[in-house]
Amino acid sequence: MPSTLITLTTDFGSDDPFAGIMKGVILGINPTASIVDLTHGIPAQNIMRAALVVRYSARYFPAGTIHVAIVDPGVGSQRRPLLIQAKDSFYVGPDNGIFSLALEGTTPAKVIELSNETYYLRPTSATFHGRDIFAAVAGYLSLGIPPDSFGNAVPGFERLAWHEPVRDNGRIQGEIVYVDSFGNLITNIQKEDLKGLSPSSVVFSLGSITIRGVKPNYASGADEEYIALFNSWDLLEISRYRGNAQAATGMQVGDKVLIRSETTSATQ
Amino acid sequence: MPSTLITLTTDFGSDDPFAGIMKGVILGINPTASIVDLTHGIPAQNIMRAALVVRYSARYFPAGTIHVAIVDPGVGSQRRPLLIQAKDSFYVGPDNGIFSLALEGTTPAKVIELSNETYYLRPTSATFHGRDIFAAVAGYLSLGIPPDSFGNAVPGFERLAWHEPVRDNGRIQGEIVYVDSFGNLITNIQKEDLKGLSPSSVVFSLGSITIRGVKPNYASGADEEYIALFNSWDLLEISRYRGNAQAATGMQVGDKVLIRSETTSATQ
Amino acid sequence: MPSTLITLTTDFGSDDPFAGIMKGVILGINPTASIVDLTHGIPAQNIMRAALVVRYSARYFPAGTIHVAIVDPGVGSQRRPLLIQAKDSFYVGPDNGIFSLALEGTTPAKVIELSNETYYLRPTSATFHGRDIFAAVAGYLSLGIPPDSFGNAVPGFERLAWHEPVRDNGRIQGEIVYVDSFGNLITNIQKEDLKGLSPSSVVFSLGSITIRGVKPNYASGADEEYIALFNSWDLLEISRYRGNAQAATGMQVGDKVLIRSETTSATQ
Repeated sequence: MPSTLITLTTDFGSDDPFAGIMKGVILGINPTASIVDLTHGIPAQNIMRAALVVRYSARYFPAGTIHVAIVDPGVGSQRRPLLIQAKDSFYVGPDNGIFSLALEGTTPAKVIELSNETYYLRPTSATFHGRDIFAAVAGYLSLGIPPDSFGNAVPGFERLAWHEPVRDNGRIQGEIVYVDSFGNLITNIQKEDLKGLSPSSVVFSLGSITIRGVKPNYASGADEEYIALFNSWDLLEISRYRGNAQAATGMQVGDKVLIRSETTSATQ
Repeated sequence: MPSTLITLTTDFGSDDPFAGIMKGVILGINPTASIVDLTHGIPAQNIMRAALVVRYSARYFPAGTIHVAIVDPGVGSQRRPLLIQAKDSFYVGPDNGIFSLALEGTTPAKVIELSNETYYLRPTSATFHGRDIFAAVAGYLSLGIPPDSFGNAVPGFERLAWHEPVRDNGRIQGEIVYVDSFGNLITNIQKEDLKGLSPSSVVFSLGSITIRGVKPNYASGADEEYIALFNSWDLLEISRYRGNAQAATGMQVGDKVLIRSETTSATQ
Repeated sequence: MPSTLITLTTDFGSDDPFAGIMKGVILGINPTASIVDLTHGIPAQNIMRAALVVRYSARYFPAGTIHVAIVDPGVGSQRRPLLIQAKDSFYVGPDNGIFSLALEGTTPAKVIELSNETYYLRPTSATFHGRDIFAAVAGYLSLGIPPDSFGNAVPGFERLAWHEPVRDNGRIQGEIVYVDSFGNLITNIQKEDLKGLSPSSVVFSLGSITIRGVKPNYASGADEEYIALFNSWDLLEISRYRGNAQAATGMQVGDKVLIRSETTSATQ
């Protein structure tokens, strides 16, 4: 039987041994588990970014994968530790919305509060449930222990507020939701949001930058030209070919992107 | 048989392929070895920090794990390459104190100088024993080759100076020993050091900051409040809820933390 | 049968999940593949640095290893996706010279354009061939699918311009080709380039720094002394013992290093 895959997404960084310690706990319970780091570079306490990482990564992992995500400012308080079974996969982490974007539009098969301390590492600290609860539970779950063994079903889980693009009078207003390490500005605008607009006449404005048309790939841009394209997550992205759009513009998550069609503009 | 676990702790960073090259050497010798990075983010030549990482991580790995740690400014000189067997585990690296905190209070079963060049990669460089000696030895050791095959027993190993908290006239003076990537200030003060003090009346002073009482977890603090708690390593930690205590205070490893009880203070 | 080894070298950084997503694709195809990160810290679009990383790392991996390297500003354009079989190993990535330093002086057994879309992830994006083509092909290749199945043979592949040291009138002019995270300045000068010069009388000049002789290892230097030594890649390296030569000198890749013998100097 192939080993079970477990992914890790945290804000632990890579300079401390916290992620490595979680792997020790997992492999001590199930030596054949296969562990993949999605990233430990989530900015401290940025639950939204972790939720986006899980959302756009989970689909590339095989059925049965256990996704562990830990950005957990409420560790040790009343926030619940959760196991969610949905979409042929498992999600293990704090109940603070971290899985809500990955599971948008999905009805989970099970939502379990991890209340059975049999599967905790003991003594259980009040500051590192990644090690003492989530890694331990992921290890036991990867051994085939049924989800119901870990605790009682609960009715639902926390959800993050997700901003859909807004349509107003023929224009669309989206926003930057993620900036990657190349400085690409990734927005919440999907292909269907541009339905009815001609790809060549659509105009994007953000700050003082105006971009005409959607390009098929990065190399379609001239050097340091700002371009718009649909990226590998199928989201509209503002990029600067052989440059860094974030560094050049100072744009950040939450900044707005306005979309209109050239025709509309000409008739104003 | 489950594969043997090997952990790596180095100051190689993650921008160069040095840690990856070590994995190539290990897996070339034992393709079934399972390798876990504790961290490659030790600041260059900071043996003490590596020693703390191994000390507080090793206990979460199963018996038989091989811990390889390399912060090695003396590479190629007379410092000895070592294999230590202790606490049901193995420790492989330079003899410069890097394992001494993990093994405090322990009498190792074996301390072997890695003098048998049969188990070196050849030609052996004078600048990268991580690759040519320590990775190779860890690979062979993980195949089950007995420790004595790697060289001769030696009487002991280098130890780092560890500063215990100092008691003076009812007060305790500790110090910061580790700052994590969240900016938490971790001290050398353990729970037993506070024995006899009431958790609610104890007062911590560092620089211009005064903290009263020990909190059970991070979320017990108000936003940006400085709090003191016992962390997942059972060490007293000064933290700032939803903030970064290091960035806000400028405190560094070696800075002092004074502890007294409120009563003492009132009678002064 | 031991699992096949796959190495990854990219400019994706470690703060985004891009490398982790590639691992999901590979392990979804071949759950027993063993994946090693060489580095994801290549500066964005620095093909030369990735080519050096592969060149100096590949030799430490066992026969049959699949080296995937992706620094790919031309993704989605006409640049070809390649599979090269050479030196008992496989190389998978864009045809932009990224493997040309590893394969210098080698005649590959096969150079295949990855044109068979059967082995692509579909739908195939125009911006992330690392996920959709290279990870998928590496996964299938690791299952034992023959190289010829992935597309048609092509006559050759792109090569990077490599600067050999220049000899002029008894002097040698080399240059810095790589700066590692310790700040060591690694040059293109090999031991054979110094043939005929006495190790103790050779003089290295870079900027305002003059170094006499070649040291055997780092610890032969006094604290903060600049030294020259042959490093673990058998290249001449300028280092500063317990210091950071790059930070102290500001030297960068491309800066020149002049070599002469003391005798020559004295007779001028």
